[in-house]
Amino acid sequence: MIAIKRALISVSDKTGIIDFAAALERQGCEIISTGGTRKVLEDAGIRVTGISSVTGNPEAFGGRMKTLSFQIGSALLFDREKDAEEASALGIAPIDLVVCNLYPFAEARAQGADLPALIEHIDIGGPTMVRAAAKNYTYVAVVVDPGDYPDLLNELAENGGAISKETRFRLMRKAFNHTADYDALIATTLDGQAGELSVRLAFDRAKKLRYGENAHQEGYFLRQRDAARSYYDMNVLHGKELSYNNMVDMYAALESLRDMRTHACAVIKHANPCGLSSGDDQRKALEYAWAGDPVSAYGSVIAFNSTVTRGTVDFFELDAEDKSRRKFVEIVVAPGFAPEALDYLQLHKNLRIVEFDPRLLTPARDMKFLHGALLYQDTDMETWEKTECVTALRPKIDPELLDFGLKAVRQLKSNAICAVRKTAAGYCQLLGMGCGQPNRLNSTELTLARCRENLLNAWDGAGDPEAYIRENMAETVLFSDAFFPFPDNVEIAHAAGIRTIVQPGGSLRDKLVIGKADELGVGMVFTGMRHFKH
Amino acid sequence: MIAIKRALISVSDKTGIIDFAAALERQGCEIISTGGTRKVLEDAGIRVTGISSVTGNPEAFGGRMKTLSFQIGSALLFDREKDAEEASALGIAPIDLVVCNLYPFAEARAQGADLPALIEHIDIGGPTMVRAAAKNYTYVAVVVDPGDYPDLLNELAENGGAISKETRFRLMRKAFNHTADYDALIATTLDGQAGELSVRLAFDRAKKLRYGENAHQEGYFLRQRDAARSYYDMNVLHGKELSYNNMVDMYAALESLRDMRTHACAVIKHANPCGLSSGDDQRKALEYAWAGDPVSAYGSVIAFNSTVTRGTVDFFELDAEDKSRRKFVEIVVAPGFAPEALDYLQLHKNLRIVEFDPRLLTPARDMKFLHGALLYQDTDMETWEKTECVTALRPKIDPELLDFGLKAVRQLKSNAICAVRKTAAGYCQLLGMGCGQPNRLNSTELTLARCRENLLNAWDGAGDPEAYIRENMAETVLFSDAFFPFPDNVEIAHAAGIRTIVQPGGSLRDKLVIGKADELGVGMVFTGMRHFKH
Repeated sequence: MIAIKRALISVSDKTGIIDFAAALERQGCEIISTGGTRKVLEDAGIRVTGISSVTGNPEAFGGRMKTLSFQIGSALLFDREKDAEEASALGIAPIDLVVCNLYPFAEARAQGADLPALIEHIDIGGPTMVRAAAKNYTYVAVVVDPGDYPDLLNELAENGGAISKETRFRLMRKAFNHTADYDALIATTLDGQAGELSVRLAFDRAKKLRYGENAHQEGYFLRQRDAARSYYDMNVLHGKELSYNNMVDMYAALESLRDMRTHACAVIKHANPCGLSSGDDQRKALEYAWAGDPVSAYGSVIAFNSTVTRGTVDFFELDAEDKSRRKFVEIVVAPGFAPEALDYLQLHKNLRIVEFDPRLLTPARDMKFLHGALLYQDTDMETWEKTECVTALRPKIDPELLDFGLKAVRQLKSNAICAVRKTAAGYCQLLGMGCGQPNRLNSTELTLARCRENLLNAWDGAGDPEAYIRENMAETVLFSDAFFPFPDNVEIAHAAGIRTIVQPGGSLRDKLVIGKADELGVGMVFTGMRHFKH
Repeated sequence: MIAIKRALISVSDKTGIIDFAAALERQGCEIISTGGTRKVLEDAGIRVTGISSVTGNPEAFGGRMKTLSFQIGSALLFDREKDAEEASALGIAPIDLVVCNLYPFAEARAQGADLPALIEHIDIGGPTMVRAAAKNYTYVAVVVDPGDYPDLLNELAENGGAISKETRFRLMRKAFNHTADYDALIATTLDGQAGELSVRLAFDRAKKLRYGENAHQEGYFLRQRDAARSYYDMNVLHGKELSYNNMVDMYAALESLRDMRTHACAVIKHANPCGLSSGDDQRKALEYAWAGDPVSAYGSVIAFNSTVTRGTVDFFELDAEDKSRRKFVEIVVAPGFAPEALDYLQLHKNLRIVEFDPRLLTPARDMKFLHGALLYQDTDMETWEKTECVTALRPKIDPELLDFGLKAVRQLKSNAICAVRKTAAGYCQLLGMGCGQPNRLNSTELTLARCRENLLNAWDGAGDPEAYIRENMAETVLFSDAFFPFPDNVEIAHAAGIRTIVQPGGSLRDKLVIGKADELGVGMVFTGMRHFKH
């Protein structure tokens, strides 16, 4: 325990400082202060020792020199045991507590300050005090965050004006993290001023996961320290601990729904949406999404972009007497849950129920870590650059469906193809997809096979199933994330009944591809925008 | 230009400091120094002003207090114009240059120092001087890296003992990056001492890419500052600028070959190996890898784990008169190239030729950035935990093939299946693969279809092709990255002629799956180790 008898207070952010200083004063602690902080404290009636009377120096050079001195440095740094005599001989009295936060460089940067103004906002004395106090945490406590005042006041009250070593150690770590953040922002900002990009990232609040992507890999989930909104902040309402793969799948789910405009539902398996639908009603969106791949939907991650209602989750039939009717999924994630929906979902004890709003996910940058290197890019937030009909047949594509199809294909791993349609009820539905293939033709084949299967599932048994399939395929639009290198994709799509294709265009063989579409009576639209995703 | 008339030198790393100080002395610069640095300089016959004669304070508290003082702080920080009178009144003479690097905290950490020893290695005075000098870069130069001495000496010689503003600005950015790195390492190390994981990453040397994953995304490639070996350090020997997607594909290629033991070749398309082979001869490995997906291999990334020979690259037939024979790929990447091989590859002017050794890629950690969060895990470097035969039929799997098959399936995006065989010539070959599918059955189907296609390609036209296929499929081993949830995968594999399956096991329905294998006369080995990769 270290009794706090002498404190040095010098803060930029003056939140809570009066109450905190007043409490220190009440316990008989001497308060040393500087410049603006001193004025605020004295105006509040707190007795303050001016820094100059400790250092013997004036506050000089427009405030650039205040605390930086042999006297303050020594008072913070000397070893209370080993150096006691030397300190005494030099007339150095210990300082037991430093309360300091730094010149608001981040705010200056956020306000677009120019280089000279940025430079003025670089604190020199502050980090020195903070770091010196932190180094000597065995004897000194250092507080950099006004959020810590209440707990500290409690601790001081409980310990008769002293702070424990455990707390000092915690505060010390916080202090070095604070100065590390501060200089990280300064360094990247000044690099930016020089026209050079540098990237510094800091993560903490690590949660140890049961394991990583596989059981033999250790895994952690961390929060980015300076993120205002983080995927980390999801709220787990129910169920087993989330796994590494759950995180990856949920992220893909939320990305899929990020900019959907109506009720939407995504069904994710291995980080790809195998089901996706949007429309006026949440329950129906779930039904149509589920129908996109009713086999893979079991054990999937289901995500919504709106508060989940009881009427929606009824779909899972978790209370069905016939257990084979119960639709088990790994996770349901949504911006919120009606209480009755939550109660119902909790019938499944292993189901993870997670609260998170995908609309909060508007990442500016997408990062891929390679060994010792970083790929850093804008996130793909767009859909199309143009909608140019390139064939004789001029298809009319519902604008909502065009938007939906592009957002769906954008979220699938390349090479990606998907087929979407507007259902009779007016819902956009992913009817089939193929993804992650070296050869685009395979993705198209996978998509068409899935469409066929799903339409057969949907067929009511009346009339000719093939006629039903062809009729529905003719209303289905095929999307490709990148251009068709050869006409073969058009051929197999046409053979399966597809009449409309949307693709970016841009192949050397576009003419051949368009020619084939014209020959077969397929309408084709070029968007001018590729959506690779790996 | 700032003439360097007075320099403060205080360095932990004394590399080159004598020559640098001697040169400063020769140009008439006064040198102020402290402790160990002073001794080294004086021993070399350089005249030094002791720090105490400037500060008026002793070097105190076992060296904790040396430079930290009103005098040094002021000499570094005061505004040479605005504050000139005040400085003069206070008896402060300017210091124009700070040469300082910090207590070797990283070395102490690397040597496993305990907490008190780590704390002793935290420099307080050093960062204060460095940051103060950097802040006042308009008037002061700061050098933190002995590597900068030669250029600075040249500049001093050229400018009559002065340093330009441009250089001072560059040095200032370097200084703040230095202190940011220093406190980042301190913060994460002390968090580690508290048993908490925190992660700080810094990247610079950004290369602007033509664009990101797609043309509407801005993209950069950066180097991790503290990486000893980095994927960034690849050497581009020839060809067009590398793109974002090239980087991703090459990385996947190098990961595929990282721990192959013989000559190996990978063919990558959309970040998955669609061809992979290993064996005694590089050329043959290429041929077998290419044959894994001879359609997708066009425009792929081809990677080797050994120096590329002329005999190997001949395969691409880049000089074939019949242009249709020329095999164009995007990139060839290898640890080295024989001069004749390089000459030959350069026949293709757009081909990127890249030198990099995949064996240098032994990443300890794999990181995935989600929005505001980080997934941080061990890289999947292992293959199997056990090799347990679970069926009545006890297949003998060549140990080399087992290793190869597991490394291949480990590198494919999940759900992943692959089929590998040992060719008559003794090469391990990826005969077919299926990856990135929500439903494992689709991956198996893709694999089997590819195997069939490749065997038909390999068939010499004599006898019954189906017999040839069945004969070869019986020698081919099917690998799954995760357990089979149902027996259906076994059924379709068997129907295609597969007689041996390797999978981790661990499904609730393992019994059913094994039962089906026994019923069909398929041998099955459980490895106990899943290899999901997303």
